[in-house]
Amino acid sequence: MTLRISKDTRLCMSLSGRPGNFGTRFQNYLYRELELDYLYKAFTTSDLPAAIGGIRALGIRGCAVSMPFKEACIEHLDALHDSAATLQSVNTIVADEGRLTGFNTDYSAVVNLLRKHGVPSDTRYALRGSGGMAKAVACALRDSGFANGCIVARNEAAGRALAAQCSVPWQAALGAEPAGLLVNVTPLGMRGAEADQLAFDEQAVAAAQWVFDVVAVPVETPLIRLARALGKPVITGGEVIVLQAVEQFVLYTGVRPDDELIQRAARFALADA
Amino acid sequence: MTLRISKDTRLCMSLSGRPGNFGTRFQNYLYRELELDYLYKAFTTSDLPAAIGGIRALGIRGCAVSMPFKEACIEHLDALHDSAATLQSVNTIVADEGRLTGFNTDYSAVVNLLRKHGVPSDTRYALRGSGGMAKAVACALRDSGFANGCIVARNEAAGRALAAQCSVPWQAALGAEPAGLLVNVTPLGMRGAEADQLAFDEQAVAAAQWVFDVVAVPVETPLIRLARALGKPVITGGEVIVLQAVEQFVLYTGVRPDDELIQRAARFALADA
Repeated sequence: MTLRISKDTRLCMSLSGRPGNFGTRFQNYLYRELELDYLYKAFTTSDLPAAIGGIRALGIRGCAVSMPFKEACIEHLDALHDSAATLQSVNTIVADEGRLTGFNTDYSAVVNLLRKHGVPSDTRYALRGSGGMAKAVACALRDSGFANGCIVARNEAAGRALAAQCSVPWQAALGAEPAGLLVNVTPLGMRGAEADQLAFDEQAVAAAQWVFDVVAVPVETPLIRLARALGKPVITGGEVIVLQAVEQFVLYTGVRPDDELIQRAARFALADA
Repeated sequence: MTLRISKDTRLCMSLSGRPGNFGTRFQNYLYRELELDYLYKAFTTSDLPAAIGGIRALGIRGCAVSMPFKEACIEHLDALHDSAATLQSVNTIVADEGRLTGFNTDYSAVVNLLRKHGVPSDTRYALRGSGGMAKAVACALRDSGFANGCIVARNEAAGRALAAQCSVPWQAALGAEPAGLLVNVTPLGMRGAEADQLAFDEQAVAAAQWVFDVVAVPVETPLIRLARALGKPVITGGEVIVLQAVEQFVLYTGVRPDDELIQRAARFALADA
Protein backbone atom coordinates (compact mmCIF):
# COMPACT_ATOMS: atom_id res chain seq x y z
CA MET A 1 0.00 0.00 0.00
CA THR A 2 1.32 3.45 -0.83
CA LEU A 3 -0.22 4.56 2.48
CA ARG A 4 2.42 2.54 4.33
CA ILE A 5 5.23 4.51 2.73
CA SER A 6 7.10 6.51 5.36
CA LYS A 7 10.32 8.44 5.71
CA ASP A 8 12.02 5.14 6.54
CA THR A 9 10.88 3.31 3.40
CA ARG A 10 13.89 2.46 1.23
CA LEU A 11 13.72 3.31 -2.46
CA CYS A 12 15.18 1.10 -5.17
CA MET A 13 15.00 2.11 -8.81
CA SER A 14 16.12 1.44 -12.34
CA LEU A 15 17.80 3.52 -15.02
CA SER A 16 17.13 2.62 -18.60
CA GLY A 17 16.86 4.27 -21.96
CA ARG A 18 13.46 2.64 -22.51
CA PRO A 19 12.02 1.80 -19.08
CA GLY A 20 9.68 -1.18 -18.88
CA ASN A 21 7.47 -2.29 -16.01
CA PHE A 22 9.01 -5.67 -15.22
CA GLY A 23 11.39 -4.55 -12.47
CA THR A 24 8.87 -2.23 -10.82
CA ARG A 25 6.17 -4.91 -10.72
CA PHE A 26 8.47 -7.78 -9.74
CA GLN A 27 10.27 -6.02 -6.91
CA ASN A 28 7.18 -4.28 -5.49
CA TYR A 29 5.28 -7.59 -5.54
CA LEU A 30 8.01 -9.25 -3.47
CA TYR A 31 8.29 -6.29 -1.09
CA ARG A 32 4.55 -6.52 -0.44
CA GLU A 33 4.42 -10.29 -0.02
CA LEU A 34 7.44 -10.31 2.29
CA GLU A 35 6.28 -7.15 4.13
CA LEU A 36 9.56 -5.34 3.48
CA ASP A 37 9.55 -1.55 3.83
CA TYR A 38 10.89 -0.96 0.32
CA LEU A 39 9.60 0.72 -2.80
CA TYR A 40 10.69 0.37 -6.43
CA LYS A 41 10.30 2.74 -9.36
CA ALA A 42 11.69 2.83 -12.91
CA PHE A 43 13.36 5.96 -14.26
CA THR A 44 15.07 7.12 -17.40
CA THR A 45 17.53 10.00 -17.70
CA SER A 46 19.31 12.16 -20.19
CA ASP A 47 22.02 12.99 -17.63
CA LEU A 48 23.58 9.80 -16.29
CA PRO A 49 26.24 11.39 -14.03
CA ALA A 50 23.61 13.56 -12.30
CA ALA A 51 21.23 10.60 -11.99
CA ILE A 52 23.92 8.51 -10.29
CA GLY A 53 24.88 11.49 -8.16
CA GLY A 54 21.24 11.62 -7.12
CA ILE A 55 21.27 7.93 -6.13
CA ARG A 56 24.22 8.63 -3.86
CA ALA A 57 22.90 11.92 -2.46
CA LEU A 58 19.37 10.65 -1.79
CA GLY A 59 20.42 7.39 -0.18
CA ILE A 60 18.61 5.26 -2.76
CA ARG A 61 19.39 1.65 -1.87
CA GLY A 62 19.87 0.10 -5.29
CA CYS A 63 19.47 0.69 -8.99
CA ALA A 64 19.04 -1.67 -11.90
CA VAL A 65 20.92 -0.46 -14.97
CA SER A 66 19.84 -1.24 -18.54
CA MET A 67 20.79 -0.12 -22.03
CA PRO A 68 22.41 2.26 -22.81
CA PHE A 69 23.93 2.85 -19.36
CA LYS A 70 25.58 -0.48 -18.48
CA GLU A 71 29.09 0.56 -19.40
CA ALA A 72 28.81 4.34 -19.11
CA CYS A 73 27.85 4.13 -15.44
CA ILE A 74 31.10 2.46 -14.39
CA GLU A 75 33.20 5.61 -14.09
CA HIS A 76 30.67 7.06 -11.62
CA LEU A 77 30.81 4.12 -9.20
CA ASP A 78 33.15 3.50 -6.30
CA ALA A 79 33.78 -0.22 -6.79
CA LEU A 80 32.97 -3.17 -9.04
CA HIS A 81 32.04 -6.65 -7.89
CA ASP A 82 33.79 -9.49 -9.77
CA SER A 83 30.62 -10.21 -11.77
CA ALA A 84 30.82 -6.72 -13.29
CA ALA A 85 34.59 -6.24 -13.31
CA THR A 86 35.32 -9.08 -15.77
CA LEU A 87 32.65 -7.80 -18.14
CA GLN A 88 33.16 -4.10 -17.52
CA SER A 89 29.36 -4.01 -17.66
CA VAL A 90 27.05 -3.22 -14.75
CA ASN A 91 23.35 -4.06 -14.49
CA THR A 92 22.96 -3.42 -10.76
CA ILE A 93 24.21 -0.72 -8.42
CA VAL A 94 24.07 -1.25 -4.68
CA ALA A 95 24.55 1.76 -2.40
CA ASP A 96 25.95 1.28 1.08
CA GLU A 97 26.10 4.57 2.96
CA GLY A 98 26.97 6.55 -0.14
CA ARG A 99 29.41 3.98 -1.54
CA LEU A 100 28.21 2.60 -4.89
CA THR A 101 29.24 -0.89 -6.04
CA GLY A 102 28.46 -2.27 -9.50
CA PHE A 103 27.31 -5.88 -9.97
CA ASN A 104 26.18 -7.88 -12.98
CA THR A 105 23.33 -10.20 -12.11
CA ASP A 106 22.69 -10.98 -15.81
CA TYR A 107 26.01 -12.76 -15.86
CA SER A 108 25.28 -14.86 -12.78
CA ALA A 109 21.73 -15.58 -13.97
CA VAL A 110 23.01 -16.99 -17.29
CA VAL A 111 25.65 -19.11 -15.57
CA ASN A 112 22.89 -20.58 -13.38
CA LEU A 113 20.49 -21.15 -16.30
CA LEU A 114 23.05 -23.03 -18.43
CA ARG A 115 23.65 -25.32 -15.49
CA LYS A 116 19.96 -25.70 -14.64
CA HIS A 117 19.04 -26.65 -18.23
CA GLY A 118 21.99 -29.07 -18.44
CA VAL A 119 23.45 -27.67 -21.66
CA PRO A 120 26.72 -29.63 -22.19
CA SER A 121 29.67 -27.25 -22.26
CA ASP A 122 31.14 -28.92 -25.34
CA THR A 123 28.16 -27.72 -27.39
CA ARG A 124 29.23 -25.35 -30.16
CA TYR A 125 27.41 -22.03 -29.79
CA ALA A 126 26.60 -19.12 -32.06
CA LEU A 127 25.81 -15.90 -30.20
CA ARG A 128 24.25 -12.93 -32.00
CA GLY A 129 24.90 -9.51 -30.45
CA SER A 130 27.74 -7.41 -29.11
CA GLY A 131 26.19 -5.00 -26.59
CA GLY A 132 26.38 -5.00 -22.81
CA MET A 133 24.00 -7.92 -22.39
CA ALA A 134 25.80 -9.91 -25.12
CA LYS A 135 28.99 -9.45 -23.16
CA ALA A 136 27.34 -10.80 -20.01
CA VAL A 137 26.01 -13.87 -21.82
CA ALA A 138 29.23 -14.55 -23.77
CA CYS A 139 31.36 -14.32 -20.63
CA ALA A 140 28.90 -16.57 -18.79
CA LEU A 141 29.28 -19.14 -21.59
CA ARG A 142 33.06 -18.81 -21.48
CA ASP A 143 33.21 -19.14 -17.70
CA SER A 144 30.85 -22.14 -17.86
CA GLY A 145 33.38 -23.92 -20.08
CA PHE A 146 31.89 -23.24 -23.51
CA ALA A 147 35.11 -22.87 -25.54
CA ASN A 148 33.78 -23.68 -29.01
CA GLY A 149 31.60 -21.07 -30.67
CA CYS A 150 31.41 -17.78 -32.46
CA ILE A 151 30.17 -14.22 -32.00
CA VAL A 152 27.90 -13.04 -34.81
CA ALA A 153 27.60 -9.26 -34.90
CA ARG A 154 27.07 -6.55 -37.47
CA ASN A 155 29.13 -4.14 -35.36
CA GLU A 156 32.60 -5.40 -36.28
CA ALA A 157 34.59 -3.52 -33.65
CA ALA A 158 32.34 -4.57 -30.75
CA GLY A 159 31.95 -8.06 -32.20
CA ARG A 160 35.69 -8.62 -32.56
CA ALA A 161 36.36 -7.26 -29.05
CA LEU A 162 33.79 -9.61 -27.51
CA ALA A 163 35.04 -12.57 -29.58
CA ALA A 164 38.59 -11.90 -28.44
CA GLN A 165 37.41 -11.76 -24.83
CA CYS A 166 35.92 -15.24 -25.23
CA SER A 167 38.71 -16.65 -27.47
CA VAL A 168 36.28 -17.47 -30.28
CA PRO A 169 36.03 -16.06 -33.81
CA TRP A 170 33.87 -13.13 -34.84
CA GLN A 171 31.59 -13.43 -37.87
CA ALA A 172 29.54 -10.74 -39.60
CA ALA A 173 26.83 -13.32 -40.33
CA LEU A 174 26.04 -16.88 -39.30
CA GLY A 175 28.24 -19.24 -41.35
CA ALA A 176 27.49 -22.68 -42.75
CA GLU A 177 28.97 -24.57 -39.79
CA PRO A 178 26.05 -25.76 -37.62
CA ALA A 179 25.79 -24.57 -34.02
CA GLY A 180 24.23 -26.75 -31.35
CA LEU A 181 23.32 -23.76 -29.18
CA LEU A 182 21.86 -20.61 -30.74
CA VAL A 183 21.88 -17.56 -28.54
CA ASN A 184 20.12 -14.31 -29.44
CA VAL A 185 21.25 -11.23 -27.53
CA THR A 186 20.00 -8.61 -29.99
CA PRO A 187 16.65 -6.74 -29.88
CA LEU A 188 15.38 -8.87 -32.78
CA GLY A 189 11.96 -10.17 -31.79
CA MET A 190 11.53 -7.62 -29.01
CA ARG A 191 8.24 -5.69 -28.76
CA GLY A 192 8.63 -2.64 -31.00
CA ALA A 193 10.02 -2.05 -34.46
CA GLU A 194 11.76 -5.44 -34.70
CA ALA A 195 9.02 -7.57 -33.14
CA ASP A 196 8.57 -9.72 -36.25
CA GLN A 197 12.28 -10.32 -36.85
CA LEU A 198 13.77 -13.77 -36.46
CA ALA A 199 17.25 -13.70 -34.94
CA PHE A 200 18.21 -17.05 -36.59
CA ASP A 201 16.61 -18.57 -39.70
CA GLU A 202 14.65 -21.81 -39.74
CA GLN A 203 17.54 -23.81 -41.16
CA ALA A 204 19.84 -22.80 -38.29
CA VAL A 205 17.16 -23.53 -35.70
CA ALA A 206 16.42 -26.93 -37.26
CA ALA A 207 20.13 -27.81 -37.03
CA ALA A 208 20.47 -26.69 -33.39
CA GLN A 209 19.95 -28.67 -30.19
CA TRP A 210 19.20 -25.65 -27.96
CA VAL A 211 17.77 -22.20 -28.54
CA PHE A 212 18.38 -19.43 -26.03
CA ASP A 213 16.69 -16.07 -26.62
CA VAL A 214 17.50 -13.31 -24.14
CA VAL A 215 14.58 -11.12 -25.29
CA ALA A 216 12.06 -11.06 -22.43
CA VAL A 217 9.30 -8.81 -23.75
CA PRO A 218 7.58 -10.78 -25.07
CA VAL A 219 8.88 -14.07 -23.70
CA GLU A 220 7.41 -15.87 -26.73
CA THR A 221 9.51 -14.23 -29.46
CA PRO A 222 9.36 -15.45 -33.07
CA LEU A 223 12.60 -17.35 -32.40
CA ILE A 224 11.27 -19.09 -29.29
CA ARG A 225 8.00 -19.95 -31.06
CA LEU A 226 9.91 -21.41 -34.01
CA ALA A 227 12.18 -23.43 -31.73
CA ARG A 228 9.20 -24.81 -29.80
CA ALA A 229 7.48 -25.68 -33.10
CA LEU A 230 10.57 -27.63 -34.14
CA GLY A 231 10.68 -29.43 -30.80
CA LYS A 232 13.89 -27.79 -29.56
CA PRO A 233 14.46 -27.18 -25.85
CA VAL A 234 14.55 -23.44 -25.13
CA ILE A 235 15.92 -21.04 -22.55
CA THR A 236 13.86 -17.85 -22.57
CA GLY A 237 14.53 -14.24 -21.74
CA GLY A 238 11.74 -14.59 -19.20
CA GLU A 239 13.94 -16.96 -17.22
CA VAL A 240 16.92 -14.61 -17.44
CA ILE A 241 15.01 -11.51 -16.43
CA VAL A 242 13.44 -13.27 -13.44
CA LEU A 243 16.65 -14.88 -12.19
CA GLN A 244 18.69 -11.70 -12.52
CA ALA A 245 15.92 -9.75 -10.78
CA VAL A 246 15.92 -12.23 -7.90
CA GLU A 247 19.66 -11.67 -7.47
CA GLN A 248 19.04 -7.90 -7.44
CA PHE A 249 16.32 -8.38 -4.85
CA VAL A 250 18.72 -10.35 -2.65
CA LEU A 251 21.41 -7.68 -3.01
CA TYR A 252 18.99 -4.89 -2.07
CA THR A 253 17.18 -6.58 0.80
CA GLY A 254 19.35 -9.45 2.02
CA VAL A 255 16.28 -11.70 1.76
CA ARG A 256 16.02 -14.67 -0.66
CA PRO A 257 12.41 -15.46 -1.64
CA ASP A 258 11.39 -19.11 -2.12
CA ASP A 259 10.72 -20.57 -5.59
CA GLU A 260 6.94 -20.54 -5.31
CA LEU A 261 6.91 -16.84 -4.44
CA ILE A 262 9.39 -16.06 -7.23
CA GLN A 263 7.09 -17.77 -9.72
CA ARG A 264 4.09 -15.78 -8.50
CA ALA A 265 6.03 -12.50 -8.67
CA ALA A 266 7.27 -13.41 -12.16
CA ARG A 267 3.77 -14.17 -13.42
CA PHE A 268 2.53 -10.87 -11.99
CA ALA A 269 5.43 -8.88 -13.44
CA LEU A 270 5.49 -10.50 -16.89
CA ALA A 271 1.73 -10.06 -17.29
CA ASP A 272 2.36 -6.36 -17.93
CA ALA A 273 6.09 -5.97 -18.46
CA MET B 1 -1.27 0.21 -3.87
CA THR B 2 2.44 -0.18 -4.50
CA LEU B 3 1.45 -2.85 -7.05
CA ARG B 4 -0.02 -0.13 -9.24
CA ILE B 5 3.32 1.66 -9.49
CA SER B 6 4.60 1.60 -13.06
CA LYS B 7 7.27 3.26 -15.16
CA ASP B 8 4.79 6.09 -15.76
CA THR B 9 4.12 6.82 -12.08
CA ARG B 10 5.39 10.29 -11.18
CA LEU B 11 7.54 10.66 -8.10
CA CYS B 12 7.34 13.63 -5.75
CA MET B 13 9.61 13.89 -2.75
CA SER B 14 10.92 16.03 0.07
CA LEU B 15 14.37 17.08 1.21
CA SER B 16 14.82 17.85 4.85
CA GLY B 17 17.48 17.66 7.51
CA ARG B 18 15.09 15.77 9.77
CA PRO B 19 12.46 14.11 7.56
CA GLY B 20 9.04 13.57 9.09
CA ASN B 21 6.13 11.55 7.76
CA PHE B 22 3.55 14.28 7.27
CA GLY B 23 4.24 15.04 3.61
CA THR B 24 4.57 11.40 2.61
CA ARG B 25 1.30 10.43 4.30
CA PHE B 26 -0.65 13.51 3.24
CA GLN B 27 0.31 13.46 -0.45
CA ASN B 28 0.06 9.66 -0.85
CA TYR B 29 -3.39 9.70 0.79
CA LEU B 30 -4.63 12.29 -1.71
CA TYR B 31 -3.03 10.48 -4.65
CA ARG B 32 -4.84 7.30 -3.66
CA GLU B 33 -8.22 8.93 -3.01
CA LEU B 34 -8.08 10.88 -6.28
CA GLU B 35 -6.61 7.91 -8.21
CA LEU B 36 -3.64 9.92 -9.43
CA ASP B 37 -0.61 7.97 -10.68
CA TYR B 38 1.81 9.69 -8.29
CA LEU B 39 4.03 8.56 -5.47
CA TYR B 40 5.61 10.54 -2.62
CA LYS B 41 8.64 9.79 -0.50
CA ALA B 42 10.69 11.79 2.03
CA PHE B 43 14.47 11.99 1.75
CA THR B 44 17.36 13.64 3.51
CA THR B 45 20.77 14.35 2.04
CA SER B 46 24.27 15.42 2.96
CA ASP B 47 24.90 16.63 -0.61
CA LEU B 48 22.26 19.17 -1.62
CA PRO B 49 23.63 20.04 -5.08
CA ALA B 50 23.77 16.36 -6.08
CA ALA B 51 20.31 15.73 -4.64
CA ILE B 52 18.84 18.58 -6.69
CA GLY B 53 20.82 17.40 -9.72
CA GLY B 54 19.16 14.03 -9.18
CA ILE B 55 15.68 15.60 -9.12
CA ARG B 56 16.42 17.17 -12.49
CA ALA B 57 18.11 14.11 -14.01
CA LEU B 58 15.49 11.61 -12.82
CA GLY B 59 12.48 13.67 -13.86
CA ILE B 60 11.10 13.85 -10.32
CA ARG B 61 7.99 16.05 -10.49
CA GLY B 62 8.29 18.05 -7.32
CA CYS B 63 10.14 18.37 -4.06
CA ALA B 64 9.20 19.88 -0.72
CA VAL B 65 12.16 21.63 0.91
CA SER B 66 12.58 22.00 4.66
CA MET B 67 15.29 23.11 7.05
CA PRO B 68 18.20 23.50 6.48
CA PHE B 69 17.85 23.62 2.69
CA LYS B 70 15.31 26.40 2.08
CA GLU B 71 17.84 29.07 1.18
CA ALA B 72 20.76 26.91 0.09
CA CYS B 73 18.75 25.28 -2.68
CA ILE B 74 18.11 28.56 -4.51
CA GLU B 75 21.38 28.70 -6.44
CA HIS B 76 20.65 25.26 -7.92
CA LEU B 77 17.24 26.21 -9.36
CA ASP B 78 16.40 27.73 -12.72
CA ALA B 79 13.73 30.20 -11.60
CA LEU B 80 11.89 31.54 -8.53
CA HIS B 81 8.16 32.17 -8.30
CA ASP B 82 7.20 35.50 -6.66
CA SER B 83 6.25 33.70 -3.43
CA ALA B 84 9.87 32.56 -3.05
CA ALA B 85 11.67 35.46 -4.70
CA THR B 86 10.57 38.06 -2.11
CA LEU B 87 11.64 35.81 0.72
CA GLN B 88 14.66 34.27 -0.95
CA SER B 89 13.40 31.09 0.70
CA VAL B 90 12.02 28.05 -1.10
CA ASN B 91 9.86 25.30 0.40
CA THR B 92 8.71 23.74 -2.89
CA ILE B 93 10.48 22.87 -6.13
CA VAL B 94 8.44 22.08 -9.23
CA ALA B 95 10.19 20.44 -12.18
CA ASP B 96 8.89 20.97 -15.69
CA GLU B 97 10.92 19.01 -18.22
CA GLY B 98 14.17 19.55 -16.37
CA ARG B 99 13.47 23.20 -15.48
CA LEU B 100 13.27 23.71 -11.71
CA THR B 101 11.19 26.56 -10.24
CA GLY B 102 11.16 27.44 -6.54
CA PHE B 103 7.92 28.37 -4.74
CA ASN B 104 7.06 29.17 -1.15
CA THR B 105 3.73 27.70 -0.15
CA ASP B 106 4.38 28.47 3.54
CA TYR B 107 4.11 32.15 2.68
CA SER B 108 0.83 31.78 0.80
CA ALA B 109 -0.58 29.46 3.49
CA VAL B 110 0.09 32.04 6.23
CA VAL B 111 -1.43 34.88 4.18
CA ASN B 112 -4.56 32.74 3.77
CA LEU B 113 -4.71 31.74 7.45
CA LEU B 114 -4.45 35.33 8.74
CA ARG B 115 -7.38 36.23 6.49
CA LYS B 116 -9.39 33.12 7.36
CA HIS B 117 -9.03 33.71 11.12
CA GLY B 118 -9.89 37.40 10.70
CA VAL B 119 -6.87 38.74 12.59
CA PRO B 120 -7.06 42.57 12.19
CA SER B 121 -3.98 43.88 10.46
CA ASP B 122 -3.55 46.70 12.97
CA THR B 123 -2.80 44.13 15.69
CA ARG B 124 0.71 44.57 17.06
CA TYR B 125 2.66 41.31 16.66
CA ALA B 126 5.74 39.77 18.23
CA LEU B 127 7.34 37.06 16.11
CA ARG B 128 9.98 34.75 17.58
CA GLY B 129 12.44 33.26 15.11
CA SER B 130 14.70 34.25 12.24
CA GLY B 131 15.09 31.15 10.04
CA GLY B 132 13.58 30.37 6.66
CA MET B 133 10.11 29.70 8.01
CA ALA B 134 10.24 32.87 10.16
CA LYS B 135 10.99 34.82 7.02
CA ALA B 136 7.95 33.31 5.26
CA VAL B 137 5.67 34.17 8.19
CA ALA B 138 7.07 37.67 8.74
CA CYS B 139 6.74 38.56 5.06
CA ALA B 140 3.22 37.13 5.01
CA LEU B 141 2.38 39.41 7.96
CA ARG B 142 3.98 42.40 6.25
CA ASP B 143 2.20 41.74 2.95
CA SER B 144 -1.10 41.28 4.83
CA GLY B 145 -0.76 44.82 6.18
CA PHE B 146 0.69 44.10 9.63
CA ALA B 147 3.03 47.10 10.00
CA ASN B 148 3.30 47.24 13.76
CA GLY B 149 5.35 44.56 15.47
CA CYS B 150 8.79 43.22 16.29
CA ILE B 151 11.10 40.34 15.49
CA VAL B 152 12.41 38.55 18.58
CA ALA B 153 15.48 36.46 17.81
CA ARG B 154 18.60 35.32 19.60
CA ASN B 155 20.50 35.33 16.29
CA GLU B 156 21.12 39.07 16.01
CA ALA B 157 22.32 39.17 12.41
CA ALA B 158 19.43 37.11 11.05
CA GLY B 159 16.98 38.84 13.37
CA ARG B 160 18.04 42.34 12.30
CA ALA B 161 17.94 41.36 8.61
CA LEU B 162 14.43 40.00 8.90
CA ALA B 163 13.27 42.99 10.97
CA ALA B 164 14.65 45.36 8.32
CA GLN B 165 12.84 43.41 5.61
CA CYS B 166 9.57 43.96 7.46
CA SER B 167 10.35 47.54 8.64
CA VAL B 168 9.93 46.60 12.29
CA PRO B 169 12.45 46.57 15.15
CA TRP B 170 14.55 43.58 16.18
CA GLN B 171 14.70 42.58 19.86
CA ALA B 172 16.91 39.98 21.53
CA ALA B 173 14.06 39.18 23.92
CA LEU B 174 10.38 40.01 24.28
CA GLY B 175 10.04 43.52 25.77
CA ALA B 176 7.48 44.93 28.14
CA GLU B 177 5.25 46.35 25.43
CA PRO B 178 2.29 43.97 25.02
CA ALA B 179 1.69 42.27 21.67
CA GLY B 180 -1.80 41.36 20.50
CA LEU B 181 -0.54 38.59 18.24
CA LEU B 182 2.20 36.24 19.42
CA VAL B 183 3.84 34.19 16.69
CA ASN B 184 6.29 31.35 17.37
CA VAL B 185 8.47 30.31 14.47
CA THR B 186 11.22 28.59 16.47
CA PRO B 187 11.49 24.84 17.27
CA LEU B 188 10.45 25.55 20.88
CA GLY B 189 7.67 23.10 21.73
CA MET B 190 8.51 20.79 18.82
CA ARG B 191 8.82 17.05 19.43
CA GLY B 192 12.42 16.43 20.47
CA ALA B 193 14.83 18.16 22.80
CA GLU B 194 12.74 21.34 23.17
CA ALA B 195 9.32 19.69 23.44
CA ASP B 196 8.66 21.15 26.92
CA GLN B 197 9.76 24.69 26.06
CA LEU B 198 7.29 27.53 26.01
CA ALA B 199 7.99 30.04 23.23
CA PHE B 200 6.25 32.88 25.14
CA ASP B 201 5.68 33.07 28.89
CA GLU B 202 2.28 33.04 30.57
CA GLN B 203 2.26 36.80 31.13
CA ALA B 204 2.74 37.50 27.41
CA VAL B 205 0.09 34.97 26.43
CA ALA B 206 -2.36 36.43 28.96
CA ALA B 207 -1.82 39.88 27.46
CA ALA B 208 -2.28 38.71 23.85
CA GLN B 209 -5.45 38.45 21.76
CA TRP B 210 -4.13 35.79 19.36
CA VAL B 211 -1.54 33.04 19.56
CA PHE B 212 -0.04 31.58 16.41
CA ASP B 213 2.39 28.65 16.75
CA VAL B 214 3.96 27.36 13.56
CA VAL B 215 5.19 24.14 15.22
CA ALA B 216 3.13 21.29 13.72
CA VAL B 217 4.55 18.21 15.43
CA PRO B 218 2.82 18.04 17.79
CA VAL B 219 -0.02 20.42 16.91
CA GLU B 220 -0.81 20.83 20.61
CA THR B 221 2.44 22.46 21.73
CA PRO B 222 2.88 23.83 25.27
CA LEU B 223 2.20 27.32 23.83
CA ILE B 224 -1.02 26.28 22.09
CA ARG B 225 -2.20 24.41 25.21
CA LEU B 226 -1.50 27.46 27.38
CA ALA B 227 -3.30 29.79 24.95
CA ARG B 228 -6.34 27.51 24.86
CA ALA B 229 -6.33 27.30 28.66
CA LEU B 230 -6.37 31.12 28.80
CA GLY B 231 -9.22 31.24 26.27
CA LYS B 232 -7.18 32.79 23.45
CA PRO B 233 -8.00 32.04 19.83
CA VAL B 234 -5.15 30.11 18.21
CA ILE B 235 -3.72 29.44 14.78
CA THR B 236 -1.81 26.16 14.82
CA GLY B 237 1.10 24.74 12.90
CA GLY B 238 -1.26 21.94 11.90
CA GLU B 239 -3.26 24.46 9.87
CA VAL B 240 -0.10 25.85 8.25
CA ILE B 241 1.37 22.48 7.36
CA VAL B 242 -1.89 21.27 5.83
CA LEU B 243 -2.58 24.42 3.83
CA GLN B 244 0.95 24.67 2.47
CA ALA B 245 0.85 20.96 1.59
CA VAL B 246 -2.40 21.45 -0.31
CA GLU B 247 -0.74 24.19 -2.36
CA GLN B 248 2.16 21.83 -3.06
CA PHE B 249 -0.27 19.14 -4.12
CA VAL B 250 -1.96 21.56 -6.53
CA LEU B 251 1.41 22.61 -7.99
CA TYR B 252 2.47 18.98 -8.51
CA THR B 253 -0.78 17.57 -9.89
CA GLY B 254 -2.87 20.49 -11.12
CA VAL B 255 -5.77 19.08 -9.07
CA ARG B 256 -7.37 20.91 -6.10
CA PRO B 257 -8.95 18.54 -3.55
CA ASP B 258 -12.18 19.59 -1.81
CA ASP B 259 -12.21 20.59 1.86
CA GLU B 260 -13.70 17.36 3.18
CA LEU B 261 -10.97 15.31 1.47
CA ILE B 262 -8.27 17.69 2.72
CA GLN B 263 -9.52 17.23 6.29
CA ARG B 264 -9.46 13.44 5.95
CA ALA B 265 -5.94 13.52 4.48
CA ALA B 266 -4.81 15.86 7.26
CA ARG B 267 -6.20 13.61 10.01
CA PHE B 268 -4.50 10.61 8.41
CA ALA B 269 -1.18 12.43 8.00
CA LEU B 270 -1.10 14.13 11.42
CA ALA B 271 -1.93 10.86 13.18
CA ASP B 272 1.66 9.73 12.56
CA ALA B 273 3.55 12.81 11.39
